[in-house]
Amino acid sequence: MPEAEIPITFQPSGKTTRVRRGTPLLEAAAGAGLTLDSPCGGEGTCGKCRVRLLGTNGKPGPSPPGPAELRRLGTEEIDEGFRLACQTPVAEPMTVEVPESSLLASHYQILSDWKGRSIDTRDPAVAKRYVEMPEPARGDDQPDLLRLQNALGPFDIDLEMARLIPGRLRENQFRGTAVTADGRLIDFEPGDTTGQCFAVAVDVGTTTLVAMLVDLSTGEELGVVSRLNPQTRFGDDVLTRILHAREKSDGLAELHGIVLDAVNEMIGELVERGDVARRHVYEVSFAGNTTMQQLLCRIDPQFLGEVPFVPGVGRSLRLAAADLGLAIHPRGVGYVLPVIGGFVGGDTVSGMLVTAMAEEEGPSLLVDIGTNGEIVLAAEGKLLAAATAAGPAFEGARIEHGMRGGHGAIEKVTIDDGLHYSVIGGVKPIGFCGSALIDVAAELLRHKLISPEGRMTWPVDLPEDLPEDLRQRVVIHNDHPAFVIAGETETGTGKPILLSQRDVRQLQLASGAIRAGIVVLLRRAGLEPADLRRVFVAGGFGNFIRRTNAQRIGLLPEQIPRDRIRYQGNASLAGARLTAMSLVARRQAEELARRTEHVDLSFDYHFQESFAEAMIFPSG
Amino acid sequence: MPEAEIPITFQPSGKTTRVRRGTPLLEAAAGAGLTLDSPCGGEGTCGKCRVRLLGTNGKPGPSPPGPAELRRLGTEEIDEGFRLACQTPVAEPMTVEVPESSLLASHYQILSDWKGRSIDTRDPAVAKRYVEMPEPARGDDQPDLLRLQNALGPFDIDLEMARLIPGRLRENQFRGTAVTADGRLIDFEPGDTTGQCFAVAVDVGTTTLVAMLVDLSTGEELGVVSRLNPQTRFGDDVLTRILHAREKSDGLAELHGIVLDAVNEMIGELVERGDVARRHVYEVSFAGNTTMQQLLCRIDPQFLGEVPFVPGVGRSLRLAAADLGLAIHPRGVGYVLPVIGGFVGGDTVSGMLVTAMAEEEGPSLLVDIGTNGEIVLAAEGKLLAAATAAGPAFEGARIEHGMRGGHGAIEKVTIDDGLHYSVIGGVKPIGFCGSALIDVAAELLRHKLISPEGRMTWPVDLPEDLPEDLRQRVVIHNDHPAFVIAGETETGTGKPILLSQRDVRQLQLASGAIRAGIVVLLRRAGLEPADLRRVFVAGGFGNFIRRTNAQRIGLLPEQIPRDRIRYQGNASLAGARLTAMSLVARRQAEELARRTEHVDLSFDYHFQESFAEAMIFPSG
Repeated sequence: MPEAEIPITFQPSGKTTRVRRGTPLLEAAAGAGLTLDSPCGGEGTCGKCRVRLLGTNGKPGPSPPGPAELRRLGTEEIDEGFRLACQTPVAEPMTVEVPESSLLASHYQILSDWKGRSIDTRDPAVAKRYVEMPEPARGDDQPDLLRLQNALGPFDIDLEMARLIPGRLRENQFRGTAVTADGRLIDFEPGDTTGQCFAVAVDVGTTTLVAMLVDLSTGEELGVVSRLNPQTRFGDDVLTRILHAREKSDGLAELHGIVLDAVNEMIGELVERGDVARRHVYEVSFAGNTTMQQLLCRIDPQFLGEVPFVPGVGRSLRLAAADLGLAIHPRGVGYVLPVIGGFVGGDTVSGMLVTAMAEEEGPSLLVDIGTNGEIVLAAEGKLLAAATAAGPAFEGARIEHGMRGGHGAIEKVTIDDGLHYSVIGGVKPIGFCGSALIDVAAELLRHKLISPEGRMTWPVDLPEDLPEDLRQRVVIHNDHPAFVIAGETETGTGKPILLSQRDVRQLQLASGAIRAGIVVLLRRAGLEPADLRRVFVAGGFGNFIRRTNAQRIGLLPEQIPRDRIRYQGNASLAGARLTAMSLVARRQAEELARRTEHVDLSFDYHFQESFAEAMIFPSG
Repeated sequence: MPEAEIPITFQPSGKTTRVRRGTPLLEAAAGAGLTLDSPCGGEGTCGKCRVRLLGTNGKPGPSPPGPAELRRLGTEEIDEGFRLACQTPVAEPMTVEVPESSLLASHYQILSDWKGRSIDTRDPAVAKRYVEMPEPARGDDQPDLLRLQNALGPFDIDLEMARLIPGRLRENQFRGTAVTADGRLIDFEPGDTTGQCFAVAVDVGTTTLVAMLVDLSTGEELGVVSRLNPQTRFGDDVLTRILHAREKSDGLAELHGIVLDAVNEMIGELVERGDVARRHVYEVSFAGNTTMQQLLCRIDPQFLGEVPFVPGVGRSLRLAAADLGLAIHPRGVGYVLPVIGGFVGGDTVSGMLVTAMAEEEGPSLLVDIGTNGEIVLAAEGKLLAAATAAGPAFEGARIEHGMRGGHGAIEKVTIDDGLHYSVIGGVKPIGFCGSALIDVAAELLRHKLISPEGRMTWPVDLPEDLPEDLRQRVVIHNDHPAFVIAGETETGTGKPILLSQRDVRQLQLASGAIRAGIVVLLRRAGLEPADLRRVFVAGGFGNFIRRTNAQRIGLLPEQIPRDRIRYQGNASLAGARLTAMSLVARRQAEELARRTEHVDLSFDYHFQESFAEAMIFPSG
């Protein structure tokens, strides 16, 4: 049964969420889109997720501090209402103030924090500058473009823009805002428009497209939209798309066209919601796996479908938005992240970039869970990357009632005497997303309703001591056992939401592939799971991942201490955003892509063996 | 009467010409398109125009050496047939060997000679390189573009080319010729095509268009074509064209379209004659006056027609050939020279570049004679430039029987007891070009058939002692005296070719404007004509300019010692060629354009005064 949810408001952002009683504030904040810093993994030892509880009347709320908080915060701060978000369970509606210092360094801040390196992260490829020039007069016959160049510094220019400049300068009395992209003058706008400078970052996933509007003048995120990648109608993995491009004469154009249309529609949604003029969007930055990037660019992926799976480009691409057909400023630009190999793409480079994993002391691991699962191991200055065909289960595809982590998705499930879930948007659920899939499978394993081999228990074989609520949830569905997460009366569809035997098989495949990839990379480096100092889990499968549950289903090795696992969210999108904002980040991305060794698992004997093993859920 | 002409062949080029008996070999070589080095001005003192006379049977010819030659060459060389071209008059048909060392340093060599500076002049914007790459194989899944980059070094690339590369590499077994333009990969061609790398240099004159095909792999000139600028139908000076662009709604597009079409037709002629594939022409480099360059680029020239006459661009432009509509390689590039001011354009910068005048010791002057006369003075590290509206007389326009210096043009005239002329191409004449205009005016002044004020003598007022042949040439034409250069029986048209009173007036205007400009610039720098150490005369008005005659008509001040005057030919074309071949030259051009002070003569009192004075022919 769905539990009544408690509304929480965060200040100064004004973001709100609704969570179940007892949910740690850290998690509630994540639900509201605020990622608090918690390097200790929510153990209450690092003291970084400091927040201040405000009563509804602005006074400190009543939550008593725990011992960890007393240690980390001191009585003075506690008297002012400060608490650690990871140690504070939600008990009643409240307003919480989040100090800037407690937010997980946004990605460009992470970058600038890298080991004290001084990196100017506010150097986007697109720059605006307001300039005022003296008007030509007798004795000052300086050519128009040189006049502008004297005010602005050197720039490149194409013929079209050179043709426009003389008229533009005079229409605006030689005052206005010059826009450059990659050092090329792309516009001269009336007045001071330096505050209207936007980019869109796009995560081009095999299953899901996510786009974010970014204010380049502040670095702020102005909105995010997502949708199913329309290419899924031609198959839900990269190989079927490559096949479609190859077998049908206009297959490539078709795949390219529909994803481009979708991107343009998402840009349209973003600018409309954000009340931003489309002509003020000057750049789009793309991250996706190698095949998705090539299809987006209409670069024939056929050689990605043949041994030895060679990408067409490799390095990053800068392109004219008009050449690609992007509906932004007519002289805007596009950027596509570099890739590591045929199946380790710009999305993985994004993850490496935003986690700064290569800069960690001690071995670190990145697990990026999408339709493919990419794994990167950084150890002793070396970087190894591999891709596994995990399938789209964690994105809700191939799962009977699966869905993306959007409005109406059950995103968290706990089971004790009964079952409790929370729904994104606080509405009646219409399905469940990847994080809930992990939760429910972990809970059913714990309650022995799924065997280590992945068999769901038949209604006739249920344990005697199983609480009645759970007992009633085990049903027969398509001649196999299934588990009802939400009954037909609770859902937005009027039909029950359940986990089927087939769903569990999909989960085993997805989880096993990723786990096997981790094992193989660790073995290559001569490491054990416990040697990892940091594990970054990235992916768009929900607002949060419950580490214990991820380990319970065997997605991550149990030997990794829980506090070393950090959830990174959609790192592909974050990397696209970061590279839109920073040329330094682009250079870093290029360098990371080139430094990383691509490990081909497709013919790896150890991988096959590990995969078979990893298909079995941990019996713990 | 036309004199029988003597055929001369030059080796090793095999170039031929026909000249009048007594013509110095130096001048004959110029007629064949070979500019011999002659810094002493043909006085026989520098010894640089050394050539070897070969009899028709390959043995030394009979011409006896003069004292200057004995001094410069020594008996051993003289025995081998060596002579100084400036001291050797043509007496009979012969074959002449021209040592490489005697050719006027071609323009890029001039550049590399600049005061011992080490300038790599073989660094064109377009580069070709043949590469062979290992093919992808298991264990080598390097992306295609990175594979190429490893072989070639870094390059930029646009989306279209990135799309082509994977297929291209495989079609050609990962071997072929990479073409880059301005650091951007524009093609990957099958096989080794490094020998097929061409550019076209274009002089965009107000009256005349000249285009040259250049082999970028050798620096060699492969052909030159010229034609009337079709814009002349809208007026023969820049102001009438600016007016047309302004007054007619599609005037600019029309002016742009017809000159672009003409350029494309000339490129077509060049590649056909040169047996070169159009797709192997990767670049076009343009030099012209500011208005011509803007019309070519379709950059509205209206502000060039208003005080303070501001150019739209100023700096050089690099552009995509496709953006301009040039019919060369589809991803080829264009380059347009930087300009100095509204009426001192890329043609003048070209002249400064190829003469290296800024590097001369002592004051030097460049006089570029086209439809406008541009004058540049270099003195004590300063550069001053001014334009005068000379009009197109020296290009044969506004002259009744005037024509460009092409096939059928009388290009040299001498008058003693009778009149002698030579015709380009050795055919029956159809008109006369600028150099002949200077000659005939100078000769008529000398024979007092033109007064210092420019009045032609009436038949009834002819001097008593005038030879009969000349007497018969003075006729009445349009109610004014005129002088017959070639009678109707001698010409290709069946009509006489004559110099009219109106022609003389045009010459006075043109010559006076240029002379006045020279005087004003010298005065600004506090110099006298005799202070000039070097005077470069450039222009496309013939094969050669006779310095004495240029001084006789007052085009150049008489006080300049004759041996300091050097004819530079079409310097605009030479600069376009040089900038196609050398990025160093482009940087030099940019620097020269920016360093040069633009002197506006239009409101200069001294100019008006000097112009009035200069309209009077020297009475000497």
